[in-house]
Amino acid sequence: MSRLRVHAFSVSLDGFGAGPDQDLEHPLGLGGPELFDWFLPTRTFQKMHGNGEGETGLEDEIAARGFEDVGAWILGRNMFGPVRGPWPDESWRGWWGEEPPYHVPAFVLTHHPRAPLAMKGGTVFHFVTEGIEAALARAREAAGDRDVRLGGGVATIRQYLRARLIDELHLAISPVVLGQGEHLLGGLDLRALGYACSRHVAGGRAAAHVFLQRRED
Amino acid sequence: MSRLRVHAFSVSLDGFGAGPDQDLEHPLGLGGPELFDWFLPTRTFQKMHGNGEGETGLEDEIAARGFEDVGAWILGRNMFGPVRGPWPDESWRGWWGEEPPYHVPAFVLTHHPRAPLAMKGGTVFHFVTEGIEAALARAREAAGDRDVRLGGGVATIRQYLRARLIDELHLAISPVVLGQGEHLLGGLDLRALGYACSRHVAGGRAAAHVFLQRRED
Repeated sequence: MSRLRVHAFSVSLDGFGAGPDQDLEHPLGLGGPELFDWFLPTRTFQKMHGNGEGETGLEDEIAARGFEDVGAWILGRNMFGPVRGPWPDESWRGWWGEEPPYHVPAFVLTHHPRAPLAMKGGTVFHFVTEGIEAALARAREAAGDRDVRLGGGVATIRQYLRARLIDELHLAISPVVLGQGEHLLGGLDLRALGYACSRHVAGGRAAAHVFLQRRED
Repeated sequence: MSRLRVHAFSVSLDGFGAGPDQDLEHPLGLGGPELFDWFLPTRTFQKMHGNGEGETGLEDEIAARGFEDVGAWILGRNMFGPVRGPWPDESWRGWWGEEPPYHVPAFVLTHHPRAPLAMKGGTVFHFVTEGIEAALARAREAAGDRDVRLGGGVATIRQYLRARLIDELHLAISPVVLGQGEHLLGGLDLRALGYACSRHVAGGRAAAHVFLQRRED
């Protein structure tokens, strides 16, 4: 069966996956962009969003791995955009411009229905109001033999962890402290949920890359 | 002025510095010993406590650094022993046998007075009932030009962090999840307290070693 994977999810040394005071100007919260200092220079990121060639090497390989064998994405609503509550209209089309970096169906968790949104390059945003398990079922169906990647953010990953639905979780531990923000693992007993560290890789710009897997029941 | 340093303090990926259910048989709590899988094989540890020669290399150098230029230690009471409340007698003489690995004065934080305890090899345990600042003042006086090392445990480090008294904090991030236990940084805003990551070193058995410093006011 296809797996549910989280890749390149960056956390601070004190465990925050986003800074405080998120808004349109600060989608990652104050200090949040520092979490991605390892990711932005990679060739993988630069090919998607940047102008330069980007750096190759270990951290680029780790970043690229996150896009392999992915047949569908799941995104929390805040990862899709800053709009809260019912959609006032359909003018918000994501943070990424007309050609988002997904190129496969992407299922956005929301409490408010909205018609699917087909973007350039193969990304189609589907808005799922029936909860995380329904989103996963639809994403699995869309992905076929391939895996489903869960993008985030923090609240979404916590929901899927609690439900023991994530198979593999790659965390990039960034060498920064945020002090406040959205804490990824606070109050979650990962060990009781069946997770263990399967391997760790020395960081370059990141302090470390760690890979957690859920043991088979 | 001499600095207050924390070295080789091991935390899990989910931020715990000790496991749950600490007692005489489990001084580090359940799962806690896994935090030290990087430290136990080092030559530094083996020379102090073990039988073998131990491994040299980067992590041994990091471990050894923690003993350089140290003129006094500060220990939380639980790091000295499992006895809680008033001392029933003076029979508990620490976890380490007759020759503890400190070889300098070691100031133990406690609410209950006890006479100093001189051990083999130069360690003298002094029991300080006047709080963390008094312990630091006495340790600084004993250390002279050398630094003071703060051994732990979690509650003690949290007190000193909150008071902005730690100058340098080395955390060894161990590739394990504990799920429960004593969380080192929960509820502390390290950034507001003035701490930042000054450098990080790839781990070997540990996932990473990170060094936090408090900026000068």
